[in-house]
Amino acid sequence: MKTIRELFGIDLPIIQAPIAGAQSGAMAAAVSAAGGLGSLPCAMLTPEGIRSELDKIRSITGRPVNVNFFAHRPPVPDPDREAKWRETLAPFYAEFGIDPATIPAGPGRAPFDADAADVLEAYRPAVVSFHFGLPEPSLLARARKCGAKILSTATTLEEALWLEDQGVDAIIAQGVEAGGHRGIFLSKDLTTQVGTFALVPQVVRAVKVPVIAAGGIADATGVRAAMALGAAGVQVGTAYLLCHEALTTPIHREVLASSAARHTAITNIFTGRPARGVVNRIIREIGPMHAGAPEFPLGTSAIAPLRAKAESRGTGDFSPLWCGQNASGCREVSAAEITRGLASGV
Amino acid sequence: MKTIRELFGIDLPIIQAPIAGAQSGAMAAAVSAAGGLGSLPCAMLTPEGIRSELDKIRSITGRPVNVNFFAHRPPVPDPDREAKWRETLAPFYAEFGIDPATIPAGPGRAPFDADAADVLEAYRPAVVSFHFGLPEPSLLARARKCGAKILSTATTLEEALWLEDQGVDAIIAQGVEAGGHRGIFLSKDLTTQVGTFALVPQVVRAVKVPVIAAGGIADATGVRAAMALGAAGVQVGTAYLLCHEALTTPIHREVLASSAARHTAITNIFTGRPARGVVNRIIREIGPMHAGAPEFPLGTSAIAPLRAKAESRGTGDFSPLWCGQNASGCREVSAAEITRGLASGV
Repeated sequence: MKTIRELFGIDLPIIQAPIAGAQSGAMAAAVSAAGGLGSLPCAMLTPEGIRSELDKIRSITGRPVNVNFFAHRPPVPDPDREAKWRETLAPFYAEFGIDPATIPAGPGRAPFDADAADVLEAYRPAVVSFHFGLPEPSLLARARKCGAKILSTATTLEEALWLEDQGVDAIIAQGVEAGGHRGIFLSKDLTTQVGTFALVPQVVRAVKVPVIAAGGIADATGVRAAMALGAAGVQVGTAYLLCHEALTTPIHREVLASSAARHTAITNIFTGRPARGVVNRIIREIGPMHAGAPEFPLGTSAIAPLRAKAESRGTGDFSPLWCGQNASGCREVSAAEITRGLASGV
Repeated sequence: MKTIRELFGIDLPIIQAPIAGAQSGAMAAAVSAAGGLGSLPCAMLTPEGIRSELDKIRSITGRPVNVNFFAHRPPVPDPDREAKWRETLAPFYAEFGIDPATIPAGPGRAPFDADAADVLEAYRPAVVSFHFGLPEPSLLARARKCGAKILSTATTLEEALWLEDQGVDAIIAQGVEAGGHRGIFLSKDLTTQVGTFALVPQVVRAVKVPVIAAGGIADATGVRAAMALGAAGVQVGTAYLLCHEALTTPIHREVLASSAARHTAITNIFTGRPARGVVNRIIREIGPMHAGAPEFPLGTSAIAPLRAKAESRGTGDFSPLWCGQNASGCREVSAAEITRGLASGV
């Protein structure tokens, strides 16, 4: 099996996980310049925003970069469901003096579309990765045609086999330890979600394409262990959250650096899709999983004013404090140093 | 850090996980004779039964063996709760023509007690392991005084620190991938449960005693990866379930050898405590976790007649089909061959 060094033309088998909301192109450029594969998360960017970040990256490094998109199908808004969800949150709105009737529709999260494909054609990045499956075939074909290697995430053996069937160039096997949104897309049943130790070797045995391990990998020791399981490389997110280039908020940084980061849960109450973050007040009081949460990404707007008010008072009680089950690799150094540290044992 | 080879005086860093209900001393003796550490699960044995199995083991091998006990505090029976639980199961009783009034109290699972301590004093095994924490101090002192090294299982960093504080000789770090009963004992919150990849390195860094990795380890590759994470050895259960010495039922064997074994869940409906098994009809219909399940081990009796009837019709719809998230190591060979295979890369 090819390692991702050969596949992507990079020096170190380390992919910096795209972290929408907590990084810009600066982190991607720093990781790529250091020899890893930096990632630019585009789910919260307009096409103009993507262009601007890619310009910034190009001004820093000419090395391969991964451009990452969500691939969900936008849901049909369901006013009844969303109204009921705001009723669930009503006691919190009252506590903070928020009139739920005044809450604007949130920015949401945009999936890969024709406009994004135009950007790819103009910039021709080395790698394009998708989360939540893959876009529809005609859009996927456009991403492929611009010359990019195509990556997507599997959380189960079935998803890995499905992705291989669609012709992806490599598969990220995301163990249940991973922070942020689960890539799960063939099922809604969270009991299907498997630990990295169980997932990686089973996927490696079942597919022919390179497998990239993700979930619980925090340092050089974790990278070595993942490669021992047959991974061709690793994708690491949480360890980058305190680095200089991260846009992680001060409140989120404080939590990550504390023992509170040891207790995370998979929750759907922030966006509508399951994602792992540190257990905080809102997760304890209505979560972690709530059947009434809106469809992704419609969940983001209802919680936004609570998060803003609480953060203005200095607490992360209502914030999505994304974090994997192993925050021990978080360090306040440069992204390049995190990258070299991860790769130091392989 | 000492490896468990030195600590226990064994040749291979492999502990065969105790599997109450699916093995006797024959498997323990075979593993120990092959150079690993075989385990005798005593939770479902009387003191006479333990003596008889230990006699059998001694007749086969003089090498170190682990004698394993549960360390739960027996619950006060709660007739209301148990009656309500039988109401939950009523549709199934009706389907199989079972009169719930005729269900006898089940055999349950006995914790380590003074009688068991008498047996240890008579046989002086090299290793004694506990699940669900540790017995009360005076009982623990008796186990220790017979010369055995003391092991117990941690499912979180907090549990590992607690066990080290009680003076255990080594800690089994049980990742969420593991089959059978979770060792969890300081919390009832399953969101605290962590994948092997995240748990092992964090425990290794936090404690001074050797750490034994468990959960998702199925073959030599997994053992190598666990050792790369800093483990001093591994404990493996699922991979032994199809071996010649296993007492695994034919129905359970068939499931383990099929793709159904890929989908497991942590469920409390079979015994009252969370344990990982293959998702079957009863888990799908009332589980996996049910707030009304009796306190461990009182859950065992209500489900026993359903299991018996369903198994007599050739299905495992109501059976606890214990299995970890990586059944790919199950092979129909001798326990010695499984043991040597696991150790072949270290």
